[in-house]
Amino acid sequence: MQIGMMGLGRMGANMVRRLMRAGHQCVVYDINADAVAALVKDGAIGASTMEEFISRLSKPRTAWLMLPAAITPKIADQVAALMEDGDTVVDGGNSYYHDAVDQAAELAKKGIDFVDVGTSGGVWGLERGYCLMIGGPDRAVKRLDPIFAALAPGADPGATPDKAAGTAPFGYLHCGPSGAGHFVKMVHNGIEYGVMAAYAEGMNILKAANAGKEKRAADAETSPLPTPQYYQFDIDLPAVAEVWRHGSVIGSWLLDLTAGALKDDPALAKFGGRVSDSGEGRWTLKAAIDTGVPAPVLSSALFDRFSSQGESAFADKLLSAMRFAFGGHVEKKG
Amino acid sequence: MQIGMMGLGRMGANMVRRLMRAGHQCVVYDINADAVAALVKDGAIGASTMEEFISRLSKPRTAWLMLPAAITPKIADQVAALMEDGDTVVDGGNSYYHDAVDQAAELAKKGIDFVDVGTSGGVWGLERGYCLMIGGPDRAVKRLDPIFAALAPGADPGATPDKAAGTAPFGYLHCGPSGAGHFVKMVHNGIEYGVMAAYAEGMNILKAANAGKEKRAADAETSPLPTPQYYQFDIDLPAVAEVWRHGSVIGSWLLDLTAGALKDDPALAKFGGRVSDSGEGRWTLKAAIDTGVPAPVLSSALFDRFSSQGESAFADKLLSAMRFAFGGHVEKKG
Amino acid sequence: MQIGMMGLGRMGANMVRRLMRAGHQCVVYDINADAVAALVKDGAIGASTMEEFISRLSKPRTAWLMLPAAITPKIADQVAALMEDGDTVVDGGNSYYHDAVDQAAELAKKGIDFVDVGTSGGVWGLERGYCLMIGGPDRAVKRLDPIFAALAPGADPGATPDKAAGTAPFGYLHCGPSGAGHFVKMVHNGIEYGVMAAYAEGMNILKAANAGKEKRAADAETSPLPTPQYYQFDIDLPAVAEVWRHGSVIGSWLLDLTAGALKDDPALAKFGGRVSDSGEGRWTLKAAIDTGVPAPVLSSALFDRFSSQGESAFADKLLSAMRFAFGGHVEKKG
Amino acid sequence: MQIGMMGLGRMGANMVRRLMRAGHQCVVYDINADAVAALVKDGAIGASTMEEFISRLSKPRTAWLMLPAAITPKIADQVAALMEDGDTVVDGGNSYYHDAVDQAAELAKKGIDFVDVGTSGGVWGLERGYCLMIGGPDRAVKRLDPIFAALAPGADPGATPDKAAGTAPFGYLHCGPSGAGHFVKMVHNGIEYGVMAAYAEGMNILKAANAGKEKRAADAETSPLPTPQYYQFDIDLPAVAEVWRHGSVIGSWLLDLTAGALKDDPALAKFGGRVSDSGEGRWTLKAAIDTGVPAPVLSSALFDRFSSQGESAFADKLLSAMRFAFGGHVEKKG
Repeated sequence: MQIGMMGLGRMGANMVRRLMRAGHQCVVYDINADAVAALVKDGAIGASTMEEFISRLSKPRTAWLMLPAAITPKIADQVAALMEDGDTVVDGGNSYYHDAVDQAAELAKKGIDFVDVGTSGGVWGLERGYCLMIGGPDRAVKRLDPIFAALAPGADPGATPDKAAGTAPFGYLHCGPSGAGHFVKMVHNGIEYGVMAAYAEGMNILKAANAGKEKRAADAETSPLPTPQYYQFDIDLPAVAEVWRHGSVIGSWLLDLTAGALKDDPALAKFGGRVSDSGEGRWTLKAAIDTGVPAPVLSSALFDRFSSQGESAFADKLLSAMRFAFGGHVEKKG
Repeated sequence: MQIGMMGLGRMGANMVRRLMRAGHQCVVYDINADAVAALVKDGAIGASTMEEFISRLSKPRTAWLMLPAAITPKIADQVAALMEDGDTVVDGGNSYYHDAVDQAAELAKKGIDFVDVGTSGGVWGLERGYCLMIGGPDRAVKRLDPIFAALAPGADPGATPDKAAGTAPFGYLHCGPSGAGHFVKMVHNGIEYGVMAAYAEGMNILKAANAGKEKRAADAETSPLPTPQYYQFDIDLPAVAEVWRHGSVIGSWLLDLTAGALKDDPALAKFGGRVSDSGEGRWTLKAAIDTGVPAPVLSSALFDRFSSQGESAFADKLLSAMRFAFGGHVEKKG
Repeated sequence: MQIGMMGLGRMGANMVRRLMRAGHQCVVYDINADAVAALVKDGAIGASTMEEFISRLSKPRTAWLMLPAAITPKIADQVAALMEDGDTVVDGGNSYYHDAVDQAAELAKKGIDFVDVGTSGGVWGLERGYCLMIGGPDRAVKRLDPIFAALAPGADPGATPDKAAGTAPFGYLHCGPSGAGHFVKMVHNGIEYGVMAAYAEGMNILKAANAGKEKRAADAETSPLPTPQYYQFDIDLPAVAEVWRHGSVIGSWLLDLTAGALKDDPALAKFGGRVSDSGEGRWTLKAAIDTGVPAPVLSSALFDRFSSQGESAFADKLLSAMRFAFGGHVEKKG
Repeated sequence: MQIGMMGLGRMGANMVRRLMRAGHQCVVYDINADAVAALVKDGAIGASTMEEFISRLSKPRTAWLMLPAAITPKIADQVAALMEDGDTVVDGGNSYYHDAVDQAAELAKKGIDFVDVGTSGGVWGLERGYCLMIGGPDRAVKRLDPIFAALAPGADPGATPDKAAGTAPFGYLHCGPSGAGHFVKMVHNGIEYGVMAAYAEGMNILKAANAGKEKRAADAETSPLPTPQYYQFDIDLPAVAEVWRHGSVIGSWLLDLTAGALKDDPALAKFGGRVSDSGEGRWTLKAAIDTGVPAPVLSSALFDRFSSQGESAFADKLLSAMRFAFGGHVEKKG
């Protein structure tokens, strides 16, 4: 079937390619004309304005947006203004699910369906397929089933699940009304932060397994290492990450990637350690707080990222100031 | 080759079976004679005392222990007392790596090698193979390579890694001197706690996504749900766990198991929520503390288990007592 | 000067008493006529409807609301509808500062000043005075200075701070425009959660100092206590709380209350350990998340309260389900 | 009475002065002869070797050590070697309570009493008095009562507690057998870390209250500030710390110090934010882990210090590496 894709960055462009490989027709638009041209060369129908983009879609139209969260609501409004009863706007970005709830209610007044699709898979999705978490009205979600099926990975090799019993084994799921897709994706990313941090902390502990070999200051500002004889291991981190991929309880796709990254660059020298967060972890925590659900692991993972961005600085200065005030402790140099 | 296995519980018995399937000869012993008999029926050589067990081993002997951590050091001593120069004791249990460091030094005086093998794979290891993290002297570790290779999963289907470049892609790894195997396994389990908690917290947030449908008390002791319109989703948790298995960033073996568990029993009604911990998470944290490595996610996961065991009770009573003291707040009933 | 107080619960009634003791005239109203009557007996001017309450105030009128957060915005609107240019609404409750920002902007259109006053001091404020964190337009805040000064504790005994240099040493502070008072009070309470939890966790550890005297299961589901000889202390918790009040670094008013509570009831037998939270801790965390500030301690304190309310239950069941799935672990009974 | 003090640093020297003011005789020794000379000028009896130090003490002798934890056990052994039945060694430093348990058992064989005294009060103790947490045999603790009473702050002004009912109101407490004093002090410091972090995090949130005024990048690597209108406050941190000292629930001695530090240097420009930890927080956590007591707040506080020392660096690099691997995310510059 036909679909329009707007926003041809890393994610959007690859999704278009995966859809075209499956035989779907894609009308594409981006403010970056080069991105449009590249896909036209691969067989897509290009548009050079939003109006042209909409006009090239056959009714009922479907415009799928893959845009930064910050601008999605505004663009969705502009797109919807060019649409009519029976058309559908899909937001496949990392948007806040509140916006989906609100916007769906707004567009429903005009008979336009709003479908929010949490899309996981990253730069690997083109080959592996994307895991899709979908929210929206049944009518639109059913109509778009061939699109979702093409983007998703499909059933496991050798498995033959019954689609009538649900699409989850095929890698896509209608999670509920508008907002439910982004809600589930939000929590997915919250979990992702926690899982990533668990590996990162563990690897950091392994790296310190040779701490007993280092000379340590013996002053009142340095906690002594109590049993240096137990910290004499030089652990080969890339090899450990690799071995865990085979038969251990903590095997995962993130571990696969971690093993690959450590193999290429065991000291991770090309990274500085400033870890961004793009919003979903924050929203997950807010949902936990609103509903009174404890989330100590997910919050610890988020706050570590904040600290990596330098945001503990003032708090840490204050701790030093207190230590100086009550005990005359002077800061050690790093 | 031949190996002796002592401790024929869930793990030990399956490991014997996997070794025999690969053509190895197994001498087996357990204080539970039925466990011995069951394996003898499958082709193992049984022993009814520790002395008989050792006497049936050909030199250089290898006695592999799969015993509870609490008794392993004592039994290892008894086994070693029956051994001689060139023999090997393997501890494959969830033992504290400190014990391995100490015991290896002790046995080395007699020329006996001590090999510590962290063994991951649980009840699935018989079919999937076990991930092995190995510490100990080169001599013994090299000699036992066929045993490790048979227990481990082996290379991925279709992959043909070069064993000369390392055994990690085959699912086993010589991590360093005695203690290194249990150290790496300890951190593995620490990570496991964190990863499990990340999924559990996320699922708990998804479960609360319909909080806006519930009536909520409107008194000064109850924090209001600020935007009930955004918490109207009835999320199908088994389906979400299933869809995440296909193409998402958080796909993992633990998620596979979670999806299976939720499919069988969506409300998890047969579980009470008292989560044990068997020591490795605690030791991981102690290693982090000794070496000054931050581990907020791993510690949050551990402490949640302690709380699930009822160990926050006094602290929580004290919080209620303070709230009563400064504000006259009376506890709400649960 | 004259002031109207609406909401005569624990906080409001005591504040009226403290104001009358300082010679101020109080017009009072509550839907509970008994609460009004009790204060009238003490010298206040009572009102039996909101209209009467407003009509008894001299211009420019000041109506101070001490109401639950959930109903404050609605009542403030009703009160403001009876007011005119130059009048002032004060919200002294534990309200969300967003509401203050919004409401101040709304009322400003009618020339009515909105002043938000975070009020700390609890049931002890009548005698000790209340710490006041104030947000709002200069005009109103200056006009109400005598009221604030009377409610606040005043300068420390023997101290003679210069009010021209700021009112903070007197126990009240104009923190900024409307919303700033509730913002500062919100963070105050967030800190309060953290401080309370620090004491509670520490006391819980002290209580466990005799763990080595207890018999412990020695099975695979129980982590052994490694060095029982170091956990043989029966600590007298009330005495420790008391001694810390005298010269230690952690002396505080909350510790004073803790010592009192433990003295009265060392086992805290009358408390069940279900710890409510009234919103401010949640809002503090949301502000931290919005602004990217790490707050691991404050969030841990909040999440412990959620857990005490039973909200970890499903997450913990899921952990048990995973442990059963990968390792055949069966839950221990509590 | 007479007492010997060895270790005349910040703490030891001031304690000697406080004891002499109370009329006690002090024999003093330090490897730094200047430190000895300074106290001799103030009336102490100096010694220039350890042997001379011991020989100048009258029997039964008491040698109080105020030394770094790392060297205390060794020096205590040397001192004890010069003593005899009935003498007492006091360790007043921040030592690990395990050492006290072990050393007391060792010295008891020779009839020498070992008394461990956790000493809180910092550089202010000379004037305010020290809070003393004491472990050891009754005989020695009773004999030293005049010394403890002189070092401690004494009863609150105006209060007349009954010493027969306990010494806690006077600021010193016999907490139990040898080790109990350092155990209680250890937990005291663990709490201290938590309380300090609660203030520091809260102040950091207040500092960010003007985040809505700053321009923020609008790219996919930056989480947007959702409601800038609610983050427009320029909070005067020194004034807030000051106002909280007067009547608020979170008044404390640490807050007093914080207010002073912020008043002197609102930006805390002279601190870099590298926060040391001297061991007690680590030991507190280990005790919590050993006994299965949840301590999420205390551990968060400790781990933040580790992070401030740069120890999250590798973990954070690994997070960046994973983000690059799955999503092509490139690190932002700080």
